[in-house]
Amino acid sequence: MTYCVGILLDGGLVMLADSRTNAGFDHIATFRKMTVWEVPGDRVIVLLVAGNLAVTQAVVDLLSEGAEGAPQDGVESLLTCHTLAAAARLVGKAVREVHARDAAALREQGTEFAASFILGGQIVGAPPRLFQIYAAGNYIEATPDTPYLQIGETKYGKPILDRLVAFGSGLDEAAKLALISMDSTLRSNISVGPPLDLLIYEKASLKVTRRRSIGPEDAYFETLRRSWSDAIAAAVKQVPDPN
Amino acid sequence: MTYCVGILLDGGLVMLADSRTNAGFDHIATFRKMTVWEVPGDRVIVLLVAGNLAVTQAVVDLLSEGAEGAPQDGVESLLTCHTLAAAARLVGKAVREVHARDAAALREQGTEFAASFILGGQIVGAPPRLFQIYAAGNYIEATPDTPYLQIGETKYGKPILDRLVAFGSGLDEAAKLALISMDSTLRSNISVGPPLDLLIYEKASLKVTRRRSIGPEDAYFETLRRSWSDAIAAAVKQVPDPN
Repeated sequence: MTYCVGILLDGGLVMLADSRTNAGFDHIATFRKMTVWEVPGDRVIVLLVAGNLAVTQAVVDLLSEGAEGAPQDGVESLLTCHTLAAAARLVGKAVREVHARDAAALREQGTEFAASFILGGQIVGAPPRLFQIYAAGNYIEATPDTPYLQIGETKYGKPILDRLVAFGSGLDEAAKLALISMDSTLRSNISVGPPLDLLIYEKASLKVTRRRSIGPEDAYFETLRRSWSDAIAAAVKQVPDPN
Repeated sequence: MTYCVGILLDGGLVMLADSRTNAGFDHIATFRKMTVWEVPGDRVIVLLVAGNLAVTQAVVDLLSEGAEGAPQDGVESLLTCHTLAAAARLVGKAVREVHARDAAALREQGTEFAASFILGGQIVGAPPRLFQIYAAGNYIEATPDTPYLQIGETKYGKPILDRLVAFGSGLDEAAKLALISMDSTLRSNISVGPPLDLLIYEKASLKVTRRRSIGPEDAYFETLRRSWSDAIAAAVKQVPDPN
């Protein structure tokens, strides 16, 4: 299982992914689910993936090969496309390519063709944007009304986002909310696990300035977990008793 | 959809159910999901239900008819059984009876035989106990290690319980946590809705002393929602920023 979340903010983007992959309970491994394409001064594009690992790795391979080939061969890629929507379409096109190649064989083995993606970033001359791309290759875009998107095991971590995330939230505040949302998921589903990949993108920076990998013993994450638990225990006491 | 939660506490039990039932998005109605059997001084038994409404109503009918028939006809019922485990087996037996009668016809209509139950209460001479009964009629019991049980749309409301509910929590505190857990679910799934049925059972009282129906405009619930949102917004600010 996987949990990834992307948040679109007035001041930029927050992208967070876990890194646990499992095939059954006795085959658990660590695979990074965040990929970044960066051309400083021109673009930052961040992709988060969930679903069948073979499918999502194949999609990332196609996108990376496309990016490496461009601009020499003149074909549109994540490094040459002019808008983030075009980047989302490239992800959709890659998923369809993998589907055309693998879906029938997967079906024959009783395995579902499962894949979903969150794509966020900024290309020079336009504001940051955030998309979710489905296994069918179609996509939706986050807006100030609904500024966050989730993939994977989404339910445990949703209430905190529903209550507190807004387009106007600050980058640090949104990053804390994403981490609390992740922590809620980690506690309730053992197939979601660290290390966590956190990227905080500052609007108009057009480069990656804040990115960290949070391991299982990360001091900051421990502090966040503990101070959050203490704070909500105190918050419950503040709520009046029912009568 | 439905969300119900039962919490086993050193001081008694907290039982909470929503009351929204839906068959598709355009067929939404209110049906109570909490049934109470009470013999003051002898027993209080509370049943919460989730799943196919026709199935769960049929189960409650069988249990109620059994209770009305007893003790005249000498057959064991919720009003005459000697332990809560026996009560859980009676629920299981009723589910199996409904399954034997209805499951094949449901399958033919493409409808799943879905039902789950939380049974909590106390019978004189024994401590309060809490059970979950499955559609197959088998059951598990809550313990001090895992003092709460959920049925229906369980994920949104689970993190707050995982973080803060303990067997030693007070009745009022646990009731607040159950209501916050319900509120998280209401916000994230529109097919879970008020009125809410809350029952707080005080150990050894052997009668129902605290029960309330919480409608959509209930002043206490509004206060709880607002003060909880304010408190966690403040709690987020207390958590140190990531660097």
